[in-house]
Formats: sequence, C-alpha cells, structure tokens
Amino acid sequence: MSRVRVHNFSVSLDGFATGEGQSLDAPFGHAGGRLHEWFFQTRSFHEMRGESGGGAGVDDAVANTWATGIGAEIMGRNKFGPQRGPWENHEWTGWWGPNPPFHTPVFVLTHYPRPSVEMEGGTTFHFIDATPEEALRQAREAAGGLDVRIGGGPSTVREFLAADLIDHLHIVVVPMVLGRGVRLWDGLEGVDKRFGIESVTTPSGVTHITMRRAESGG
Amino acid sequence: MSRVRVHNFSVSLDGFATGEGQSLDAPFGHAGGRLHEWFFQTRSFHEMRGESGGGAGVDDAVANTWATGIGAEIMGRNKFGPQRGPWENHEWTGWWGPNPPFHTPVFVLTHYPRPSVEMEGGTTFHFIDATPEEALRQAREAAGGLDVRIGGGPSTVREFLAADLIDHLHIVVVPMVLGRGVRLWDGLEGVDKRFGIESVTTPSGVTHITMRRAESGG
Repeated sequence: MSRVRVHNFSVSLDGFATGEGQSLDAPFGHAGGRLHEWFFQTRSFHEMRGESGGGAGVDDAVANTWATGIGAEIMGRNKFGPQRGPWENHEWTGWWGPNPPFHTPVFVLTHYPRPSVEMEGGTTFHFIDATPEEALRQAREAAGGLDVRIGGGPSTVREFLAADLIDHLHIVVVPMVLGRGVRLWDGLEGVDKRFGIESVTTPSGVTHITMRRAESGG
Repeated sequence: MSRVRVHNFSVSLDGFATGEGQSLDAPFGHAGGRLHEWFFQTRSFHEMRGESGGGAGVDDAVANTWATGIGAEIMGRNKFGPQRGPWENHEWTGWWGPNPPFHTPVFVLTHYPRPSVEMEGGTTFHFIDATPEEALRQAREAAGGLDVRIGGGPSTVREFLAADLIDHLHIVVVPMVLGRGVRLWDGLEGVDKRFGIESVTTPSGVTHITMRRAESGG
C-alpha cells in the first residue's frame, strides 16, 4: 500500500505553521521566511529552484527525502494561492512559476473547482472539492502505486491527521514564538501515540521530528 | 547582577506546559507524568528525592544545572498546590514532603498571603501578593547575590517573560500533543528575539532549548 507523507513542515514553538495575513507578497503572512530559513539554506531548496549552492548537511539530507517515491501531492487552496472565494479568473497558477517543483499531479482542495492546468516539468494542477478520503483516493489513483504527499498548509495537514490518513509526518520545530497564524495541532490531542517518533536537532537550531506509523515501515 | 533563570520546563509540541484538571492526585492534570518522563529517568531527579539510580546522560547533565548558583525561587500558587481561592487552613505545605528540594527561600505568588513556613533542609515558603517586579525584588534580596529561579507553572513563567524579567530560559520540547491545559507562549510573539538560542535533542527524544539573554553571559 502506498503511504501518505508530510515533509519539511515547519512549526513554531507555539504550534503555528504559518503566520497571519497571507497575501501575494507574503505567502506565510507575518511569519515571512522565518519558519523556513533552515530550508532556504539547503542545497535541496536551491536545486528545487534550478540554482546551485546551499548546504549539504543533515537539514539538506532530511529535506531531500521530500520527493523520493512520491507520485502525487494534495495541497490546500491556501498553499496554492492567496485568493479566497470564487476565482476571479484562471490566470493564477501557483507561486512557483511555469515549472513548479512537484513534477507530479497535484490535487488542490477548493470549494471552487476549475479546469486542470498542465505546467512544465510534469506538474498538473487538478482542482477538486472533496473530503480528505476522496481526495486521497483520487491522488492514489494518479500516483500509480507511489506515495502521496500532503503538501500543506496547516489546515490541510490537520484535516488529514484528524482523519488518521497520515503514515509519515516530518515536522521541523523552529525555536521561535510566532504568536499568531494557523495552528497545526488543534484538535489532535494524543495524535503522537499513533506513531514511532524520532528527533534530531541540527546545527541550524531546528529539530526534525519524524513520526512514522508503526506498521507502515515508513 | 544576579540572573533570573527557568530550568527543566517541559512544553508539548502544541505549547502546553501542564494539562487540564489539576488535582491533589494529578499535579499536571490530564498530562500525568508524560511531560516529565525524560526528567524522571535522570539521576538528578532521583537525588532530589533522596534516592539512588537514574541515568547520567545529557538529560541529567542539563537537568542538574537547576540548583547551581540559585539563592531563591519564585513559584505560582498552582505549582505550590491544587487549592484555589482563600486557604481553608494552613496544613498544606506543598507536594514535596517535609524536606522540599529547593533548600532556599521560595516565594509563592498568591492573592491570599499566609504566614511563612520553614521546612527542613533550608526551604522556607513565603506567600506574597505581588507583581513580578516586586516579587523579584524580594527574591533577589533573599538570594544574597545569587540567581533567582522562576519555578513555574506556565502562567508564572509567562508573566515573567511578558515583563522581560527572564535572562535564562531552559525549555524542554516533548514530542507529544497535549491538546489542552495551560499554554506557555500566549501573548509572547517574538520573545525568542531577545535571546541567543541553543538546541539539542537527547536519546530520550526531547529537545532542550536554552534561550540566554545576550548581554547576561548566562
């Protein structure tokens, strides 16, 4: 059975995974880039943008497992863009330019479906109004036996955790107090008990916490 | 100038430092002992209780800095006991038995002052209705030039952080989702920026995060 995975998901000490006030210029609201500084420093991030440079330490090694064995992604609409409500037009195709880093089908959860968009490099955005279970069914079908990544944002990851659909959860605790935004863990008391847990701090100061469902081998 | 320190302060992934429903049998409410398992395994904890045993790894080494150079503690009333409102009598002298592990003056913040209680081993409990600043003034005077520890619970630590009175904050991130209880970080957006920060994960799976005020040398 293919697994459902979350990777490189930064969370502040107070449990926020994104800030308040998302806009075109601020995908993570008032958090700016602070939750993801550790990632911006990695070679994986640079490669994802078609650039050279970046560090090749443990942060990079862990971040780099992001794409391995993934056949489809599911993301929430707020990861896809800053718009809310009905689409004014279909010009917006995500934050990532003409060649997004996914290179697989990507299912965007939205109450306002629109035609699929085929991008360069193998990424196709599909827009679906679906429960987590139904979205996962479609993503699994598209993934051809490979794993499915839940890409975020926090509300989407939280919904998939609440539905007990996640087998592998990699979060990155960033030692900052964000104060406001969207919390990851609300309503998930005791969710850690489903998983085997491994933690490691890296020189960047973040802590990688990986929760793997015991029976998944993940 | 003596420093103000917090030590061994466990916090869940969702930012709770104690559970819901404190009672005589459950000092940490529904959290039980899970936030402090890492500490119960240490030699420091065993010694604190006059017992032998316990591990001597990094958890122990870090935990053991708790008492060094401390001349007084300030704690909230909910750390001292489960009672709320006016004292029914003065029989309760804390959770710790006749010889508490503090061995210094301890200032208990309460809206219901009562006579001081001298315990065995050098601990004296003083009960004061005071602002953080005034409590610290009294504790510093009692500490004779040594440092003052803010012992908790979370509301007390939060109030001292909000008043910018803490120089050294050692928290322990425990990879569990507590779901409810008392949050440490509410209202403290950006508090991390005051400090230099060091993090380390230990084999018990917790992450020790130490925040030291830059100019304190702490």
